[in-house]
Amino acid sequence: MAGNSFGQLFRISTFGESHGVAIGVIIDGCPAGLPIDLAFIQAELDMRRPGQSRITTQRKESDTVQILSGIFEGQSTGTPIALLIPNEDHRSKDYEHNKNVYRPSHADYTYDAKYGVRDHRGGGRSSARETAARVAAGAIAKLLLKHAGIEIFAHVSAVGKINAPALAPLPVQELFALREDNIVRCADAAAAAEMIACIEGIRKDGDTIGGKINCVIRNCPVGLGEPVFDKLHADLGKAMLSINAVHGFEYGSGFEGSEMKGSEHNDIFETDGKSPKTLTNFSGGIQGGISNGMEISFKVAFKPVATIMHNQQTVDSEGNAAEIKGKGRHDPCVVPRAVVIVEAMAALVLADQFLRNKVSRL
Amino acid sequence: MAGNSFGQLFRISTFGESHGVAIGVIIDGCPAGLPIDLAFIQAELDMRRPGQSRITTQRKESDTVQILSGIFEGQSTGTPIALLIPNEDHRSKDYEHNKNVYRPSHADYTYDAKYGVRDHRGGGRSSARETAARVAAGAIAKLLLKHAGIEIFAHVSAVGKINAPALAPLPVQELFALREDNIVRCADAAAAAEMIACIEGIRKDGDTIGGKINCVIRNCPVGLGEPVFDKLHADLGKAMLSINAVHGFEYGSGFEGSEMKGSEHNDIFETDGKSPKTLTNFSGGIQGGISNGMEISFKVAFKPVATIMHNQQTVDSEGNAAEIKGKGRHDPCVVPRAVVIVEAMAALVLADQFLRNKVSRL
Amino acid sequence: MAGNSFGQLFRISTFGESHGVAIGVIIDGCPAGLPIDLAFIQAELDMRRPGQSRITTQRKESDTVQILSGIFEGQSTGTPIALLIPNEDHRSKDYEHNKNVYRPSHADYTYDAKYGVRDHRGGGRSSARETAARVAAGAIAKLLLKHAGIEIFAHVSAVGKINAPALAPLPVQELFALREDNIVRCADAAAAAEMIACIEGIRKDGDTIGGKINCVIRNCPVGLGEPVFDKLHADLGKAMLSINAVHGFEYGSGFEGSEMKGSEHNDIFETDGKSPKTLTNFSGGIQGGISNGMEISFKVAFKPVATIMHNQQTVDSEGNAAEIKGKGRHDPCVVPRAVVIVEAMAALVLADQFLRNKVSRL
Amino acid sequence: MAGNSFGQLFRISTFGESHGVAIGVIIDGCPAGLPIDLAFIQAELDMRRPGQSRITTQRKESDTVQILSGIFEGQSTGTPIALLIPNEDHRSKDYEHNKNVYRPSHADYTYDAKYGVRDHRGGGRSSARETAARVAAGAIAKLLLKHAGIEIFAHVSAVGKINAPALAPLPVQELFALREDNIVRCADAAAAAEMIACIEGIRKDGDTIGGKINCVIRNCPVGLGEPVFDKLHADLGKAMLSINAVHGFEYGSGFEGSEMKGSEHNDIFETDGKSPKTLTNFSGGIQGGISNGMEISFKVAFKPVATIMHNQQTVDSEGNAAEIKGKGRHDPCVVPRAVVIVEAMAALVLADQFLRNKVSRL
Repeated sequence: MAGNSFGQLFRISTFGESHGVAIGVIIDGCPAGLPIDLAFIQAELDMRRPGQSRITTQRKESDTVQILSGIFEGQSTGTPIALLIPNEDHRSKDYEHNKNVYRPSHADYTYDAKYGVRDHRGGGRSSARETAARVAAGAIAKLLLKHAGIEIFAHVSAVGKINAPALAPLPVQELFALREDNIVRCADAAAAAEMIACIEGIRKDGDTIGGKINCVIRNCPVGLGEPVFDKLHADLGKAMLSINAVHGFEYGSGFEGSEMKGSEHNDIFETDGKSPKTLTNFSGGIQGGISNGMEISFKVAFKPVATIMHNQQTVDSEGNAAEIKGKGRHDPCVVPRAVVIVEAMAALVLADQFLRNKVSRL
Repeated sequence: MAGNSFGQLFRISTFGESHGVAIGVIIDGCPAGLPIDLAFIQAELDMRRPGQSRITTQRKESDTVQILSGIFEGQSTGTPIALLIPNEDHRSKDYEHNKNVYRPSHADYTYDAKYGVRDHRGGGRSSARETAARVAAGAIAKLLLKHAGIEIFAHVSAVGKINAPALAPLPVQELFALREDNIVRCADAAAAAEMIACIEGIRKDGDTIGGKINCVIRNCPVGLGEPVFDKLHADLGKAMLSINAVHGFEYGSGFEGSEMKGSEHNDIFETDGKSPKTLTNFSGGIQGGISNGMEISFKVAFKPVATIMHNQQTVDSEGNAAEIKGKGRHDPCVVPRAVVIVEAMAALVLADQFLRNKVSRL
Repeated sequence: MAGNSFGQLFRISTFGESHGVAIGVIIDGCPAGLPIDLAFIQAELDMRRPGQSRITTQRKESDTVQILSGIFEGQSTGTPIALLIPNEDHRSKDYEHNKNVYRPSHADYTYDAKYGVRDHRGGGRSSARETAARVAAGAIAKLLLKHAGIEIFAHVSAVGKINAPALAPLPVQELFALREDNIVRCADAAAAAEMIACIEGIRKDGDTIGGKINCVIRNCPVGLGEPVFDKLHADLGKAMLSINAVHGFEYGSGFEGSEMKGSEHNDIFETDGKSPKTLTNFSGGIQGGISNGMEISFKVAFKPVATIMHNQQTVDSEGNAAEIKGKGRHDPCVVPRAVVIVEAMAALVLADQFLRNKVSRL
Repeated sequence: MAGNSFGQLFRISTFGESHGVAIGVIIDGCPAGLPIDLAFIQAELDMRRPGQSRITTQRKESDTVQILSGIFEGQSTGTPIALLIPNEDHRSKDYEHNKNVYRPSHADYTYDAKYGVRDHRGGGRSSARETAARVAAGAIAKLLLKHAGIEIFAHVSAVGKINAPALAPLPVQELFALREDNIVRCADAAAAAEMIACIEGIRKDGDTIGGKINCVIRNCPVGLGEPVFDKLHADLGKAMLSINAVHGFEYGSGFEGSEMKGSEHNDIFETDGKSPKTLTNFSGGIQGGISNGMEISFKVAFKPVATIMHNQQTVDSEGNAAEIKGKGRHDPCVVPRAVVIVEAMAALVLADQFLRNKVSRL
């Protein structure tokens, strides 16, 4: 109710502040009997980890995950899986000078106004550090989906105005290799090089830049998604918009589709003798809110990180004018580290709808 | 769980198929003591009603709402408010010829695959007729918000490639008058004229066209929205994406914001002596998922309606090739009637978060 | 959230006041493909209907159920099933004289205090009339359970101090016939005769009397119930305690079990070669909150109906002393009509846990 | 959904197995600004702790609670409060010999059947160790209630057939002192002495015994409880029935009330000039599911602990006959340690309904 849980049948609840003791997550509803690969969970976290390359924040957190419950002899037991990630590198002093000052385009002011009390250290609960818990939970969702043959892949499709070409029609494993071959996590090498140069320039200026992530889901069975409010793309949209800094979501034809005619946009059905396929895929793999077996595809827009190394005018909690200068160690561009967060949230939606679909008919 | 409910504290559950006996909605959680104006609810429904102008479907439904419970002597009693809208003009025969044929870019195939049984008449549960129930419930949410001084206004900001200019900085009442002055529901008269001409051309061709709706929320108190998953814009995004034909959602700077630098994008705080205001509003009135008191603004992209008056190749439920020709009476462009649906869903999100905020602090 | 919904995966939401237009229920989550027998639903309602015998209220309501949605060609479609029961015999005038007077041991005072507004006619939402909606929904849950081979049977085990002997070990069909052979709905003819005489005496005195209902569930598969908070018996207990006038619930050995030693109370396992069975059944068919395949058995205690035909001192909404005399047509003893309500609520719990169990393992 | 969460607005989710790394709980929905007294939480846990007296299990666990999140400078921040209790004394070897053998009247068989995999060490998730997490969360609920002036008090009202007299009409503080003056936690010294002697005899025999707990809630404001399914006593009933070993719940007149007449049972209203009071309290402080301002009173029946030090016949997971002998260190009677669990669950229900009531009217 207080907004810290996500999902219905595969349900996660996260907790923790950026500069508290630890962050973590409980997964309630993971079916019993799923083999759990701890190394895989850690590898996922490593892709989100700060300090992983020269274009991310230089904060040092190993983000080592501990399993507290719900797994016995390498298998899920059907009971809640609790995962803990201790906080390590909390230079809380970096935030003392800003204690009562509202950083522009951060959540400082709104938290204060809502709660009347606020853990100001590093953004507290509003910090994107919370997403590490999502990545850990998402890793377990991915294991469930892998078991069902479903594949998820995301990559950076834009940094600022630099756009990658459409994703090449390659197997996910190859796309993954292409993406992990560069530090910006774009599956197109040429675009990646441009993006990296852009981010390095931005960083030198003490500035930040936005970007976009494209995500595809393959081998999704027909039938996932509930018809009215919990349409598959509505759940995906909410999942993405709940990630820090996201300002937009579109799937299939997206915003461009709103400029098209029905005669151009309709996806004609044909059959391969087994099940209906569509010739085009403006529907983005989802019709009436339910997966139709084609590739699901969506895009997520991230605004630039609010913490910049410039002087900025602002106000403090007493209503006085104040000046703020970005300190600390921050990301010049959030998308390289957000790729695995997007995948994690998509996995959580899919896992949930996968389970929900199991009770949709006799 | 099966996706027919929306909201947590102000919670609606809709039911009904397009060609069944009736559609309707239960609102559970409307606080006691709210004056309920039945004429207002009906007026809202009239803006969504089919057959209202020459650029909408010519189906005839009066969409007359009946109150079954929860209101006594003109006031909400705190018990569930049930609203019923009988179906009138069901020419179910219009759909007999398509009984086993999957209409392209409709939900026919996915429903069949998911449930194994389907009310094929007029799309059944997947029909946008279900949104009439949302509009009725949204009207009650609007009454609650009005009580709290919160205003919601949406209008058609684009039809196909015709874009209206940014919303003029006028009071909502004036914007409303401008919008209702034309049948396409755009608050800019010149753009409206172009849009209407466009839709009339499209209709003549038996085709359809997409469009966009822009919605603003004013006088929203600071503090609405929950911090992590139920961010205000995430709930708004899900609400919008759950509307039939919606393919995209963005708020504040949206997709364009992803091309900007932090130094351009940050909204600088200043104070009017009462509370912090921002000089710009790229944040779209929401920071860290919580309303900051500025105008909330978002855009919704609608794909073109799938039912066109052209011959289309497709397959039937046996997997045979088939041809389909659009029959029946359909909208050439959905956005004029969707304006009030967008407002209704926004009102439902706001009403819910308004109540949730009441328990966020001692 | 406002307490008008029950269940998670098989979820019902009821609405309506005793003297409003209608009462009804939405069932969300009934799996697609279930044959729905409308006559069966009506027959269930007939067992709860007022005016059915000389020992129940003489109010006249046919309680005719209408299906508004969710069923197509005799089958559930997976979409919400809405059931409506119009109110017929509302002699609202019977309640005018009590408009501002708080009837002792009724909900008049607490509703007024909670909501500040109240539909005083016949108890409004607090009337047991609401349970007709539960019986209608419970009938559909029973159809789902029947499909899975699960049987539910309840009967009146006590009226006042008259206790029926333990249920005979007969098939449910025979028990049902025995029960329906008398108007008090006790499966033991001799006890039934005593009970009926008791109730007739009570009625003559203008008084009322409490009673107990015993319910058994047979052929329940092993594994229903969630381990911690949603234990099968905890859900059953809540379901029963949510029925008007219920003051107690016990299952298996119940309150008597609290006087026993472990060496007496433990249910020894043996095997019939197929699955473990227990020699005794103090566990009442549930261990660790999960069904173990044995007969589930529980008891429900109902207080006497609060409306009596005597003069009673009380206060009014202004805080003045007042006198009240029961008018209207009320039940001298609620248990004969409550048997089917107990069964309905049990069916709703079982249907819900039956679906939940489907996603508990890979 | 998987049954590991409780409450709607004040919502807890527990995790952990008896012999895993740790158990714990997340509280989501605790309002911001509540002073949190860590010593109080620990003191509550100490009353549930094993090894506290000669009539409880001799297992040694300090049950030291750690706060991981949600509290900043001694105050709740409105974000999730995560509490961790590491497991210390896990002699898992004590359970090796029973690995594949189903202990009578335990959850071994039902867990195996439901999940197909089971952490057999000390009952795993089905162990009453899980209730330590509830006590920790309940302590925070108590702090919220204390803030609102609401008092909760429970004590042992029966061990086997030894019943304490009705609770003396003393202030809660005095009752608490009387209760904590003896190791069985009964507020009547004479009954307590008998109970202790009884339990010591039972323990010598290697046997166990059931008991009852009576709980009262005072200064509860009028209006808590939702009208239909989430009646205050229905939520209390579910809460109690979810505690390990509980087989029965009654409130107010309870099972005895079912033997009474309406003319005896009705609680006559009078007024003290401020608000209506009742002369008697057969309603147990709740009318129509909503608190009426009088003392709330209920009773909970616990069956005897299943682990006894006798030889017992049983079956193993292969279906073979087996013999089992209780090993390990177990409670001869669970009620002395369960008093604080009953209070904790009551506090959780009250805190939840307290918050829910805040949104019931404008």
